[in-house]
Amino acid sequence: MTPGGQAASENKGGAPAAAPPRVVIVGAGFGGLACARALGNARARVTIIDRRNYHLFVPLLYQVATAALSPADIAQPVRRILSRYPNIEVLMDEVTGVDWPARTVRLSSGAEIAYDRLVLATGSRYAYFGHDEWSARAPGLKGIEDARRIRARLLQGFELAEACRDPERQRTLTTTVIVGGGPTGVEMAGAVAELCRFALARDFRHVEPRSARVILLEAGPRILPQFPERLSAYAAERLRRLGVTVRTGSPVEAIEEGIVVAAGERIAAGTIVWGAGVQATSASGWVPAERDRSGRIVVAPDLGVPSVEGVYAIGDLAHAKSADGTPLPGLAQVASQQGTHLGRSLSREFEDGVPVPPFRFRDRGNTAIIGRNAAVFDFGRRQLTGLTAWILWAVVHVYLLSGFEKRLSVTLQWLWRYATYERGARLIDPNPNAAEARNAGPSS
Amino acid sequence: MTPGGQAASENKGGAPAAAPPRVVIVGAGFGGLACARALGNARARVTIIDRRNYHLFVPLLYQVATAALSPADIAQPVRRILSRYPNIEVLMDEVTGVDWPARTVRLSSGAEIAYDRLVLATGSRYAYFGHDEWSARAPGLKGIEDARRIRARLLQGFELAEACRDPERQRTLTTTVIVGGGPTGVEMAGAVAELCRFALARDFRHVEPRSARVILLEAGPRILPQFPERLSAYAAERLRRLGVTVRTGSPVEAIEEGIVVAAGERIAAGTIVWGAGVQATSASGWVPAERDRSGRIVVAPDLGVPSVEGVYAIGDLAHAKSADGTPLPGLAQVASQQGTHLGRSLSREFEDGVPVPPFRFRDRGNTAIIGRNAAVFDFGRRQLTGLTAWILWAVVHVYLLSGFEKRLSVTLQWLWRYATYERGARLIDPNPNAAEARNAGPSS
Repeated sequence: MTPGGQAASENKGGAPAAAPPRVVIVGAGFGGLACARALGNARARVTIIDRRNYHLFVPLLYQVATAALSPADIAQPVRRILSRYPNIEVLMDEVTGVDWPARTVRLSSGAEIAYDRLVLATGSRYAYFGHDEWSARAPGLKGIEDARRIRARLLQGFELAEACRDPERQRTLTTTVIVGGGPTGVEMAGAVAELCRFALARDFRHVEPRSARVILLEAGPRILPQFPERLSAYAAERLRRLGVTVRTGSPVEAIEEGIVVAAGERIAAGTIVWGAGVQATSASGWVPAERDRSGRIVVAPDLGVPSVEGVYAIGDLAHAKSADGTPLPGLAQVASQQGTHLGRSLSREFEDGVPVPPFRFRDRGNTAIIGRNAAVFDFGRRQLTGLTAWILWAVVHVYLLSGFEKRLSVTLQWLWRYATYERGARLIDPNPNAAEARNAGPSS
Repeated sequence: MTPGGQAASENKGGAPAAAPPRVVIVGAGFGGLACARALGNARARVTIIDRRNYHLFVPLLYQVATAALSPADIAQPVRRILSRYPNIEVLMDEVTGVDWPARTVRLSSGAEIAYDRLVLATGSRYAYFGHDEWSARAPGLKGIEDARRIRARLLQGFELAEACRDPERQRTLTTTVIVGGGPTGVEMAGAVAELCRFALARDFRHVEPRSARVILLEAGPRILPQFPERLSAYAAERLRRLGVTVRTGSPVEAIEEGIVVAAGERIAAGTIVWGAGVQATSASGWVPAERDRSGRIVVAPDLGVPSVEGVYAIGDLAHAKSADGTPLPGLAQVASQQGTHLGRSLSREFEDGVPVPPFRFRDRGNTAIIGRNAAVFDFGRRQLTGLTAWILWAVVHVYLLSGFEKRLSVTLQWLWRYATYERGARLIDPNPNAAEARNAGPSS
């Protein structure tokens, strides 16, 4: 079926006249994009496939959900980023499966794409502990649509509260519950609290945004469990100062429409955000492989899927081990480093036939932001909090954004928000269902 | 039903202890917002109602549709703009009708709001000449959802073309037809042509965006019929230089899925945009009144609806006459001036009992932009084209934007685009129907 490609792959380091090997990368997140970049100008034909046309800078997605940034500030077209590499093709499509014996990838458009090397980098999604029905009631924060939906619920809560005169109902509408005390949960809780206390504070006549409740629920004994205890305590203290109610030891038992049941208590809330636990995307089932409890593919030290030749998995989809045998965390820097490592190694393999060496993670430090002037940084031996950590957080995140224009735009917006306490993107998008109903004219 | 309010309205200029009269404004576009601002700090309780939470700067909406700006750049929360006026209340709700004998406004939430003065400012929508089924195939450009939909279709056309190998189909997918040669059509045609020729030019491997077809259809003998002939000719010439096919004398006969039939020819197109003819929104039917062919309420010189006491109509919803008896055009400046006039006059009426004087429109000049360094300005006696007009266009539009931050952000983005030829907001949003299907999980 793909004779040219197979010949090329068996003919590593052969004559330049042979067709170059084909690398297919599925997913243009941090891992897939880094891998593609490292393969730019390599002796290989690279195809990167994503169902979105943009690479999303997920670490700042909570700022879209809380009206501080626009989606376009953190989304860059994949083909724009990679346009300088003539050997790379970008395809906007959805992969539906892999025919690994035939070495082809199936697309939802019906097309099949042959590969010599396949890199799976489709990431993770939120896990609802087997209760998928909770996802509509408590959206997680993975994509732009999620962020828009959460932003709409948050802002709409205040709009509805302004129109209503029942104090109990007003209290419910303006209550936000965030499930999960990891970095995403902490960042959301801080940003929602600041939105209410500052940006919305003077804009309502019948409701007091400053007294809106923000509740952060964590099942374990402390928030930010991935961080040293001192930093967890600092984050909890800073959140409390912002007016956030931090409840540890509060596992969520059920999520009903507008109600969270945690530690036996029913909390009515206008907005519920899910940030607890992730699982691998369905790509982990495309090839036969050992999978961990979160569904991630257990990969070999070279990031290859052990049982399937020519297939690799990186980022949140992969369960890779660090030097001491513990699994690597699901962080952008892990995905990014794995992508670069794999891309460079494959590029060398195509030149010299040197097989992909084992991946080694270099920890650049772990961080979470709580609010203005407050963040935590963990560099292993050293830890930072407060203003220093906060400035460092901002610098690192601007630096990691793709594209000079986005960096400039985000920097200026942050300076503006810092000076004025305002939020620039307070748009309530109609929910898709409502839009559907509205557009259901004679023709649709 | 509303004894306090009625007493107040009969008691104009009475003791300060009397309840102030209530003004209800429906619609927070240029007219409604200007009216509310002019009533800020007046001796009146003002309620402004809009089904969106933001005021939209519609003149720049075509830049959102062509990926140059983000929705938040041209949308400002109504309550943010008006928060400094304690006598103004903002309500996000949809008005469903007016009980004018009882002087109340009905809301879709079920509530009723009493008024002493009612200002209808709900604007216009696109008219499809009795073919409402065309609207899904050829969306007009009125709101943010429209702009996102058009942007998605434009960009998706190129993505689909890149994945396909049939030249005929590629040509169709990358063809854009714009119906209507007024300012909106001209602006869209120019912006789409520049998007293809510059921003997308180097990002594709199997399709040549530079040769994408952009066709502007106008039923009449020339584009920009509202402008002097010289400016129409200039605009047509500049559009042609950008690669736009300008077809005058081409009335649209039918719009099928992906096909425009005009002047007997069937044109297959990936994107069809409607910019031909508007009609008043349904608010014009809420009160008994004479209406013109476009459904606009024919108002008295004081902008009042002749047959209904205490009700006014402004902006695109109203048919008002200029000094020489011709109807005023549907322009933002007309709506804005009417709103300010009415707001100030009502404010004075509440103080001194002076009735609202007749409205007089002061023409500030009419403008349309074609592309970089090319715009037209018509000041009546004087006309401008080229770079001067283009710079003036940019300055005026930045000046008219609401909020210093938006002005700064848009200015910087324009400078960036001008220098780099790039577009910063190339996001393809999933269409609502697809989102619906995807989210149709167990719970919804």
